[in-house]
Amino acid sequence: MRPFSIVLFISLLLPGCTSPSVSSRGDRPNVVILFADDLGYGDLGVYGHPTIRTPNLDRMAAEGMKFTQFYVGASVCTPSRAALLTGRLPIRSGMVNDRFRVIFPPSEGGLPESEITLAEALKTKGYATACIGKWHLGHQPRFLPTNQGFDQYFGLPYSNDMSPALTPGSANRGDPPLPLLRGTEIIEEEPDQRTLTRRYTEEAIQFIRDNKDRPFFLYLPHTFPHVPLFASDAFEGKSPRGLYGDVVEELDWSTGQILATLRDLGLDENTFVFFTSDNGPWLTEKLEGGSAGLLKDGKGTTWEGGMRVPAIAWWPDTIAPGKVTDALATTMDLYATALALAGIALPDDRVVDGVDLTPLLRGESEQVRDVVFYYRGTRLFAVRKGPWKMHFITQSAYVRDEPVPHDPPALYHLEHDPSERFNVAADHPDVIADIMQEVERHRAALKPAPSQLEIPAWE
Amino acid sequence: MRPFSIVLFISLLLPGCTSPSVSSRGDRPNVVILFADDLGYGDLGVYGHPTIRTPNLDRMAAEGMKFTQFYVGASVCTPSRAALLTGRLPIRSGMVNDRFRVIFPPSEGGLPESEITLAEALKTKGYATACIGKWHLGHQPRFLPTNQGFDQYFGLPYSNDMSPALTPGSANRGDPPLPLLRGTEIIEEEPDQRTLTRRYTEEAIQFIRDNKDRPFFLYLPHTFPHVPLFASDAFEGKSPRGLYGDVVEELDWSTGQILATLRDLGLDENTFVFFTSDNGPWLTEKLEGGSAGLLKDGKGTTWEGGMRVPAIAWWPDTIAPGKVTDALATTMDLYATALALAGIALPDDRVVDGVDLTPLLRGESEQVRDVVFYYRGTRLFAVRKGPWKMHFITQSAYVRDEPVPHDPPALYHLEHDPSERFNVAADHPDVIADIMQEVERHRAALKPAPSQLEIPAWE
Repeated sequence: MRPFSIVLFISLLLPGCTSPSVSSRGDRPNVVILFADDLGYGDLGVYGHPTIRTPNLDRMAAEGMKFTQFYVGASVCTPSRAALLTGRLPIRSGMVNDRFRVIFPPSEGGLPESEITLAEALKTKGYATACIGKWHLGHQPRFLPTNQGFDQYFGLPYSNDMSPALTPGSANRGDPPLPLLRGTEIIEEEPDQRTLTRRYTEEAIQFIRDNKDRPFFLYLPHTFPHVPLFASDAFEGKSPRGLYGDVVEELDWSTGQILATLRDLGLDENTFVFFTSDNGPWLTEKLEGGSAGLLKDGKGTTWEGGMRVPAIAWWPDTIAPGKVTDALATTMDLYATALALAGIALPDDRVVDGVDLTPLLRGESEQVRDVVFYYRGTRLFAVRKGPWKMHFITQSAYVRDEPVPHDPPALYHLEHDPSERFNVAADHPDVIADIMQEVERHRAALKPAPSQLEIPAWE
Repeated sequence: MRPFSIVLFISLLLPGCTSPSVSSRGDRPNVVILFADDLGYGDLGVYGHPTIRTPNLDRMAAEGMKFTQFYVGASVCTPSRAALLTGRLPIRSGMVNDRFRVIFPPSEGGLPESEITLAEALKTKGYATACIGKWHLGHQPRFLPTNQGFDQYFGLPYSNDMSPALTPGSANRGDPPLPLLRGTEIIEEEPDQRTLTRRYTEEAIQFIRDNKDRPFFLYLPHTFPHVPLFASDAFEGKSPRGLYGDVVEELDWSTGQILATLRDLGLDENTFVFFTSDNGPWLTEKLEGGSAGLLKDGKGTTWEGGMRVPAIAWWPDTIAPGKVTDALATTMDLYATALALAGIALPDDRVVDGVDLTPLLRGESEQVRDVVFYYRGTRLFAVRKGPWKMHFITQSAYVRDEPVPHDPPALYHLEHDPSERFNVAADHPDVIADIMQEVERHRAALKPAPSQLEIPAWE
């Protein structure tokens, strides 16, 4: 808030003092996506956590727009990331599987080269592009970020628990040592994970500095707070919330560093920054997992806690400060938004599920979509339309419980009942019928792609 | 945020332009306590609710201090209010009972006249005092606010469901028509409850205006969001959260009106304003009750959801803007704080459980207390010391379930585990032993007062 006041103050006194970068690049704003891993809806101060301190993210929300009904494309890593980077439900790209729901080290598959990633799209308009962090969309060379539209890459190719040095499951599977990549080269094996958030942040800042005079797209998918948890010396042991809090507070620091860099370089008014998470908290990890706040269940499920995540947009002078929106939006919409900002038409040879959020960001509209689909693997478990969510199937924990079919479907009014406590299907047959029609339209137009997550060599 | 910026801006340009009220009354700041009824920890935007819109309270927090670990003195109305107004655990004043936990219309009892209410204490320093709203500390004439230190009173003497016109329980009990009082006179029976929040607010603003040139204490215990819910035409049907949201959004409006009045009169920098709730959400009322967010259970219990509540302090130029504190604090501390601000010594003939929060508010200290007691009626159910909470007994719903004794006691690390999911008693016998010593000290010094809530005439 204070910096905002100061900016306002200076701009009032010096109306002629504008950054040269604003006018010369206003047609192609920079895009920065900060993507936490397994951060829950309730895990930031501004989303109500009592003992995780996130002053930078709280301030980002105070200066920007906080979303209260923002969704991911799937409730586990790989398909969620595919949704973000393609703007499409992962069933359309084949980044789904009912049993092996993410890519594992033995996996041969990855995001098909036929998909047009956000990086590939933005490159057509001259954007510099970097992926810094956890990829998890295929680690065979042809699937790595530098073959998917990113000029540069630094990070772990998959989850940080896929380490034979750290987890028995990974050792039993015969996984190779956890690699840290630069481009397509392994530069370290089993890197000290306490350094990762700091190093990702330094790499990101360097990328911004290197590209301050041209449009850029920075995709920063953090390794944390996915377990196993690691924080740097500066954060470990500092949060009242324990190690999970230490890790989230370091991500908060990282975000503050990125925003400060943008401000220092005079790029803040020409950069669209979005912070969110790939799915809900990993509740079965107990206190090493996060919290979905008032939402039900977590990672891996299609209850709200699995797929509704914290989300903050920041773009000084374009997004009015302190706005809270309950508009429905998804990670796929970031794809459509970024393309719109760069003046790129959506591809016309495929379905894109994302919608442009720009009218919402600019305060010109209060709603941009009214339907959200909740897939678990290849199966449609639930659909939201307006305030209503209809479940065909629920499954309450991460790959351990059996699915529970609902016939007739279960129905919750999410805006009255965000915790999904009261099934009101019997009172609203008209709503059920309306959503069923929505589902029929969706299914009639759907062409599922072959699964890219089959891993017969491992089985 | 914007108004804060503007105030800052003006004070920078016009350093000599200070309100005359600041200097002449700086030794006796005004005290305003805004007290919601059954509002849960998760029910405000700034505490993470997705569809209840509270821009005024969110801004109050952005300009002031948000507490994340703030407690009431009991998890139901009557003893909670007694704790706030006496600074003492309600077991010390007798405002407790294991079966009839609040005052009912047939009750003869009330807050003993021997108690020194916050209003009585502040009057010794010349404060004008008003209680506007729900009293619930005895409605026989000698117990009414105007006999407990308040110069004026307007409101309902007890809960709004104690109305034979609205609830069968009240009709069956033979309750009189729900009275609206001014002073000790009934001015309306069964008033239109849709008007109450608006009328309380208007009365409060008038009181502030009438007393702008002298120190004042405004105690505004709202009737809502206690059920049955009512909102005015301007709010009914407007919140995405439904009627509960309408009601909370009207309280948010009310708070905005109070703060705006203080600003308009130039009193903001000389007024300590505190917003909180008397206990957690009434979960058994389903969607007419609120949400405790990530906290467990609600009203009536000694789980966190029953006794930890939203709490926001506001005092421009004394409290730094945007501070979030995880310091332990309680409603009883507001008593000690107000007395300290007015330069009044705590009474030396009785135990006062409240501690002065001023060092915390002024940023001179990060912690002011480390122990919180959780009573249910006359029985000590749980104790918090530092991050640890030890339960002797738990009881999971509002007067319906049986108490569950824990021997050895259950132990939770609330800062790691705010949702009270993992009992770690077996791992921490030293913590149990330390808290047991705390309990022994507490019990050795405790002199329970005779219960004032016995109602033999009714039984």
